[in-house]
Amino acid sequence: MKFGLFGGGKVGKLNPLGDSYGYREFIQYIGDADEMGFESAFVVEHHFTGVGQLSASLNLLSYIAARTRRIRLGTAVVVLPWHNPVLLAEQITTLDVLSEGRFDLGVGRGYRKAEFDQFCLPMEEAQDRYTECLELMLKSFTNRERFSHHGKYWHFDNIVVEPAPVQQPHPPVWMAAGRAEGIAFVGKSNYNLLVDHIGNIDETVERVRVYTEAQAAAGLPRDASRVGVARQLNIVYTPEERRAAYARRRDGLVNIRELAKKPEGYAPEKMNDADIAADTAALIGTPEEIIDRLQQLADGGVEYVLLTPVNATRQTLDTFANKIMPHVKQPAKARPAPVGAAA
Amino acid sequence: MKFGLFGGGKVGKLNPLGDSYGYREFIQYIGDADEMGFESAFVVEHHFTGVGQLSASLNLLSYIAARTRRIRLGTAVVVLPWHNPVLLAEQITTLDVLSEGRFDLGVGRGYRKAEFDQFCLPMEEAQDRYTECLELMLKSFTNRERFSHHGKYWHFDNIVVEPAPVQQPHPPVWMAAGRAEGIAFVGKSNYNLLVDHIGNIDETVERVRVYTEAQAAAGLPRDASRVGVARQLNIVYTPEERRAAYARRRDGLVNIRELAKKPEGYAPEKMNDADIAADTAALIGTPEEIIDRLQQLADGGVEYVLLTPVNATRQTLDTFANKIMPHVKQPAKARPAPVGAAA
Repeated sequence: MKFGLFGGGKVGKLNPLGDSYGYREFIQYIGDADEMGFESAFVVEHHFTGVGQLSASLNLLSYIAARTRRIRLGTAVVVLPWHNPVLLAEQITTLDVLSEGRFDLGVGRGYRKAEFDQFCLPMEEAQDRYTECLELMLKSFTNRERFSHHGKYWHFDNIVVEPAPVQQPHPPVWMAAGRAEGIAFVGKSNYNLLVDHIGNIDETVERVRVYTEAQAAAGLPRDASRVGVARQLNIVYTPEERRAAYARRRDGLVNIRELAKKPEGYAPEKMNDADIAADTAALIGTPEEIIDRLQQLADGGVEYVLLTPVNATRQTLDTFANKIMPHVKQPAKARPAPVGAAA
Repeated sequence: MKFGLFGGGKVGKLNPLGDSYGYREFIQYIGDADEMGFESAFVVEHHFTGVGQLSASLNLLSYIAARTRRIRLGTAVVVLPWHNPVLLAEQITTLDVLSEGRFDLGVGRGYRKAEFDQFCLPMEEAQDRYTECLELMLKSFTNRERFSHHGKYWHFDNIVVEPAPVQQPHPPVWMAAGRAEGIAFVGKSNYNLLVDHIGNIDETVERVRVYTEAQAAAGLPRDASRVGVARQLNIVYTPEERRAAYARRRDGLVNIRELAKKPEGYAPEKMNDADIAADTAALIGTPEEIIDRLQQLADGGVEYVLLTPVNATRQTLDTFANKIMPHVKQPAKARPAPVGAAA
């Protein structure tokens, strides 16, 4: 099983020492993860939050590319409707060159109404802007001859995007999806999948199954390592730590209920500690308990987990890398890829 | 006298080993300059050239910020009409944080008709787009409270740009100007000035004088170190090298004639070697000859030179840093700043 990190939501203002201090701490943390064998670090992009969320993700990742050697660097996600598709493509290919092919491109439509209002863009345009931007970027990555684009929102004449990406035909594209039809679309389209941290183990295993089925139906090799499963991580040892972790999880679930698209009646604020403990979605517990949940995911076919540690510190990384990571065993694959299939 | 570098025009395609190789070489070169005591590195931004000119300047500089310790990193220039002002401001403040306050913001309107055509923007809008973008960026840098902007080209509601820049109130802004009225505007507006590499020593000294006079007239301290004088550098030892350098200079002048706004009748293609040798603008010659030209600039009040070496190699930097840089003596200032003036 591969383990990546997902973060960047709190680099700035929440730190009383100021924005720079938060950035330096975060950079050091990703550097530590690089040394400890974590597979990747995915970072958010948000604007105008007033609480210091990361805004210029691709610039921070460009800096981190110089401070790391093998960890992959990703966005989760770049919100396409905010960006000029061609300038964004140039930034991405430049980062792919700078990182020597370590960039993962997570893309999204945007979901915060406030951000659409702040950019003065109607939220109803999100899907069309997303689609146009993605198509134009993919064309920019792969076309080494000049081309023109006259779309609904963007116009370019006789352009060629430079530099060419290192990863061919382009950096891996990652998309979030939760419902079966969305997951199947991502799988059959040969994109990589980001899965949320709300779904419990059974739901998550089912999502990975739907994805690999869609791959197979489209004639692609089944590859569950192309599904990044987000998981919150909170390693606790004492009953006090556990109670605090449950309370924090409950608050987190209340905050993101709007985004999680859970069925009506889902009321995390009414969940008591036993409910939280019974929800297998989060990795809350001792190293042994966390190994157990990860092993269940691995047994179900999950191959790639993206961790959001509540305590994003070197100590957390160290505990995870030494006391948890080595003890999760990926089972032998039930269905080996057919002979001659692409890797 | 301070010495910076100006480049980035040829990072990509011209190198037969591909884009990545060109980027890595350029990064190493700036790293060398950092160690050798060069003051700054300013890089270009160009799009769709097909010859590998640097497109995502701020991403490359973010990477270089991690690979250098004290050299200042600048744009010369970011072409404002291409960019969303607020996304650009976020990139800039992020780079200022990442570089720990080493960023210099050179801005321009754009001058290549082909680029305006490729972006499908009318060149007649360049000035208005430039002005709106610059004003909105400056507001974004300095406003720690939320604000809205409803301009001719851009609309934002209730935004605050994060992170805050390290340099207060914002990174130094640099503008290119050549004519007296343009230079005077930059000086009195408290911006820094970029001066071209076409003007000879007398013209350049006069430009610096106009700038510092405008500073003084606006009640600002006279500070010629805020004028970056671009100079081509070609160190030659043999007659063959000198002839090749003159031929190259002549070709270069023909190529940029359109941009240099020299008076009618200026015909660099007709300049013979003696004409090129007599033109004091370029730093072509032995180390001793180059010291002589730099000393004339220093004696005339120039305090900051931005070099574009024809051979952008470690050896050129090494020769310049050891055989030229130590021998140029800044004269004692004729007019010390009044007691109590800001630095």
